[in-house]
Parts: sequence; C-alpha cells; structure tokens
Amino acid sequence: MVQAKTWILTKHFDGLPKESDFVLKVEELPELKDGEVLLEALFLSVDPYMRPFSAFRMKEGDVMIGTQVAKVIQSKNPAFPVGSHVVGRSGWRTHSVSDGTDLVPVMPEWPQDVSLSMALGVIGMPGLTALFGIEEVLGLKKGETLLVNAAAGAVGSVVGQIAKIKGCKVVGSAGSDAKVAYLKELGFDEAFNYKTVGSLEEALRTASPEGYDCFFENVGGPYSSVALQQMKNLGRIAVCGSISTYNDSTPQTGPYPQFLMIMKQLKMEGFMQSRWEHKHPESLKRLMGWLKEGKLQSREHVTKGFENMPAAFIGILQGENIGKAIVTV
Amino acid sequence: MVQAKTWILTKHFDGLPKESDFVLKVEELPELKDGEVLLEALFLSVDPYMRPFSAFRMKEGDVMIGTQVAKVIQSKNPAFPVGSHVVGRSGWRTHSVSDGTDLVPVMPEWPQDVSLSMALGVIGMPGLTALFGIEEVLGLKKGETLLVNAAAGAVGSVVGQIAKIKGCKVVGSAGSDAKVAYLKELGFDEAFNYKTVGSLEEALRTASPEGYDCFFENVGGPYSSVALQQMKNLGRIAVCGSISTYNDSTPQTGPYPQFLMIMKQLKMEGFMQSRWEHKHPESLKRLMGWLKEGKLQSREHVTKGFENMPAAFIGILQGENIGKAIVTV
Repeated sequence: MVQAKTWILTKHFDGLPKESDFVLKVEELPELKDGEVLLEALFLSVDPYMRPFSAFRMKEGDVMIGTQVAKVIQSKNPAFPVGSHVVGRSGWRTHSVSDGTDLVPVMPEWPQDVSLSMALGVIGMPGLTALFGIEEVLGLKKGETLLVNAAAGAVGSVVGQIAKIKGCKVVGSAGSDAKVAYLKELGFDEAFNYKTVGSLEEALRTASPEGYDCFFENVGGPYSSVALQQMKNLGRIAVCGSISTYNDSTPQTGPYPQFLMIMKQLKMEGFMQSRWEHKHPESLKRLMGWLKEGKLQSREHVTKGFENMPAAFIGILQGENIGKAIVTV
Repeated sequence: MVQAKTWILTKHFDGLPKESDFVLKVEELPELKDGEVLLEALFLSVDPYMRPFSAFRMKEGDVMIGTQVAKVIQSKNPAFPVGSHVVGRSGWRTHSVSDGTDLVPVMPEWPQDVSLSMALGVIGMPGLTALFGIEEVLGLKKGETLLVNAAAGAVGSVVGQIAKIKGCKVVGSAGSDAKVAYLKELGFDEAFNYKTVGSLEEALRTASPEGYDCFFENVGGPYSSVALQQMKNLGRIAVCGSISTYNDSTPQTGPYPQFLMIMKQLKMEGFMQSRWEHKHPESLKRLMGWLKEGKLQSREHVTKGFENMPAAFIGILQGENIGKAIVTV
C-alpha cells in the first residue's frame, strides 16, 4: 500500500493565501486497476493562476490543483511504462494513481543535460504561454517594440527572450533590482523596477518614447491603465495574467479603457495556452531547440521539500521568485 | 461676397455641453482661388464623437468639427463642378470655401428617391462604422448571437440590421420604449429598455441564456462590465463608442476587465471606420444595395435650422434621437 502526501485547501483564500488555508493529509492509494499507473512526483509547479482558479475550480477539502513532473513507478498502462516520465495534472500530491487521461509523456528525446523540471517551465506551460501569446495573439513582427511586465517571472522572462529572437526591442518591468539585473542579463533592451521608478508613466515613456506596438500583460490593475496610454495606434495587448488583482477581496477599479481603445484603435485579447493544444508538440520542440542553442535561458527558483509547497506558493504571489518557481519533493 | 454662419466652440465642454459653450458667428468668405470651390451646406451631421474629439482636436474659438452634405455653388476646381454634391469635413458652417482635399463627392448614381442626407447616415460614416465593425473587427458569422447597445442610434440600428442580413440572432438595448419598439420593427430578435429592466445582467441573460458571441459596444462604462460577464468563451467585442463616459468631468471607474478576459479568452478591439478608407466606395455600394432592396431601413431624427445645431447636438448626448440625427439648414 502506497501512501501519498497531499496538500488540501481547507478554506477558500481571502486576500493573500495563508499557510493556515492548507492542511497536509496522508492518503492510502488503492491497488492499480487495468489501464492505471502509479506516479511519484519529482518536481511540482506553483503558479500564479492557482490563486484565482482555486475559487472557480475547487471546493474546500479538495487537493490543490497543479501540475507536476512525475516518474511512473508502477504501470498497468502500456502507454506509460515504468521508469518513464510524465507531466500530470495531479495536484499537490507526492504520489498519485492515474488512468492516463490527465498525463502527457515528457517530450521524446529529452536531453540528458536539461533538467526535467523545465517541463514545468520554459519547455512547458509557461514557455508555451509566452510563445502563443507572441505568435498567436500579438503576431509580433520584427522591428516592433514590446512591453512585458512581471518580466522576470516564469512567463515574462521567456516572452522577452522570444521577442529578442524575433528581432524586436524589448522593455521589461519587474519588482526588484535583482530582477532588473536578470532582465539585462537576458538581453532586454530596457528594464526598470516599477516599485522604485516614481512615475510608471515616465519610466515607460523614457524606455520607449515612441510608444509600444505590443504589450504582454501579466499584471493587470493600475499598471494596465498606465501602459495602455503608452501604446501606439493599432497597438496589440495579449492579456496573460492579472497578478496584481488576484488577492483582491473586493475588485479594484480603474478608468474604463473603452474610449482610449477607440482613440488608439487598440486590440486586447485574453488567452490561455490550452487553446492551441494541437500545436504543443511542435512548439515544445522549438522551445527546446532555442534552449539548446543558448538563445533561451532559464532560471529556476527552487524550494526544497513537499512540506514547503504553501510557502512556495505564497512566495510567488509576493514576487519572491526570479524565473520559474519549482518545488522538489 | 458670401456670408457664412458658423458655430464656434467658445469654451471646452465640462460635463454635458451647454448652449452657452457655443456662439454663432458670421464670417465673410474670400473670393475663390484656382482649385477652390464654394459650398452651401444642405444637411449637417451631429454625432456623439464630437463630444470627446472636441477636447483633442479643437481649441476654444475654433469652428465646431463635423461633416455635412453640401452643394457646390461656385467652382474653380474641375473635380467638383457647380451643382454637384459632396460630403465635406467642413465643420458647423452654412457656407465654406474648400480646396477639395477634405471633400468626397457623393456616391455616383445616387438614386433620386434616396435623400442625400443619408450620405451622413446609413450610406455614410455611421453605416460604414457598422459594416466594418461587423466584418473587419468582429468577423461575425452566420448563426452567432450579437449584442448591440445604443441600438436605436445611427450606428446601432444599422449594426442590428446587417447582423440580421448575415443570419445572426440580434439582441439590442436602448433607452426608451419607443426605441425598443423601433428595434422590433427593424427585426431585432430581442430588445429591451436598459433604463427600466431593473437588472441589466438579468435582461442580457434572459435575451440570450447561452451568452453572446459578439458585442458591438457603443456605450462603455458600467454597461460594458456587465455585458463582458455575459460573453461566451472566445467572444469578440468591437468597441465603437463609449457614450456613457463622454460627459465625465472625472473619469468613471469600474472593475478591471483583464481577469475576465483571460478566463473567457475575450478579444476586445477599438476601431474607427477611417482605418478602412480604401474600402469605402465598395462598402457604400453594398449599403446602398441593401437599402434599395429594403433589407436596411433608415430613420432620421431631423432638426430644422442651422441655429439649432447646439440643441441638436446636446439632444443626441441625452439620447433624444431615434436613428441618425441630422440638421437641415
């Protein structure tokens, strides 16, 4: 009998999640039936989306939602042999039984020298989000100027690098000087600490006096209102995240964007990478290619120990991470 | 020597425009130079956009901006012979001298039985706005459900009718029972008076329980926040106007739309018909074709007398008009 540790949401979040909103529970897993596999988590992902999605997709008492890279340790499903690795939507669990429907094998021919944890980052959901936002939503073209916020995060850092690969000018903002230094390392043309610039409007104007063709939006809230003002006519905005509003108990309000959107003829589109699931295999290959060529760099913010998942999660909502936040079991 | 009456903006608007913000002035027009024409206004347009544009495109003391249908009464420009009709961006003037650069001849073969005033409405800027919003921005497809607000206005009434031509379900809202009755006459599937329904959310849900594929936005403000909630996943929003915010002295605020746009993967685009100027001739022909076939109906809200232009303009900002507001000289 295998025991699984799981993190349960005991109470829907109110404001910033607290450690007391979670409880660690040990579950006995049943014997495998035909078609099932037993998974052991190697790396677990904590991502900002878990905060708002918890309200829609979970009830109190559920295991926290989330993806992980896991190893198949028992198998009654020939598609997932023992010893193979998968990315699974198994939630915050050290072990789980799956019928395979929520599993995707890790990309074939995964290079030995690339950590499997990157299947949760640059070669996974955040990397795909960056790529589809740029290619499918923004249609970013060579020579254009792109703004990305939360730029040192799992998605933002890939966005800026792909935009550089495409021959664009990239401006990024982040919430600490260490993050800004990282953005410069990654080759961002301009980067600033939005918490210390004084005037965001001024910082955006200084970084690109002629405005922005494209804006990859991860932050939302008041930042968005200021950034829209700096868009060029016919500017495009890919709305990927809204982390500055995720902990609101009552929704923040700001000026309605409609009139500005008319005057500048702006296009703004919300998206999730799952829309282009049919393009995942080809897209992951391209991301891996860029990584191997050194055109994409990836930094991870690693928290050790399954018992620290709530702390890791609360940490990303407070902007503690540079790069992708990962928990190792 | 020809005398022109003109309406001057004496003071930038604060809130709803007042008659005292305007003054009527008589101007002596100079003799024509080579290449110039003398125009006599027949029909003048008052449109909601004039309210916000006055702040950007005018200074105090300027003649009010606007278009008119005019007759060429003297000509030293062979492109515009005496007796021909033009649509001109001449502002609020009874007579004007033009070098032709701001003039467009009225569509060739204009039918005798169609009032030339419609070159300011269904066969003009508002008709083109409706058509491009539907075809270029929304990409509205047969069988989809479209919501349009300010639906009895110059643009909204055309939007609903074109959507019906395209085989869609059309829901419209307007601000009086008489307007709602007009929408029913025009063949809207559902129409309601947003001022009396109690709950806008409930009214939108009742009119289309499965939600909306497309939303043609003329109103902005709190209406937009409620309507976004009723969009289907992957819904599209064409932002054409924001009349509910035009008279704001301090901007109204509402909940930031970003998170909702992500969850529903909504696309919202602001636009002006001038973007597709190269398509104007072909598009005006199609609109005229629909009008002649009886597929498009047009109602005008006519104010007589150039001296009543400020009142006509203030009237449309208060929702007095059904259909296109026109002033006859």
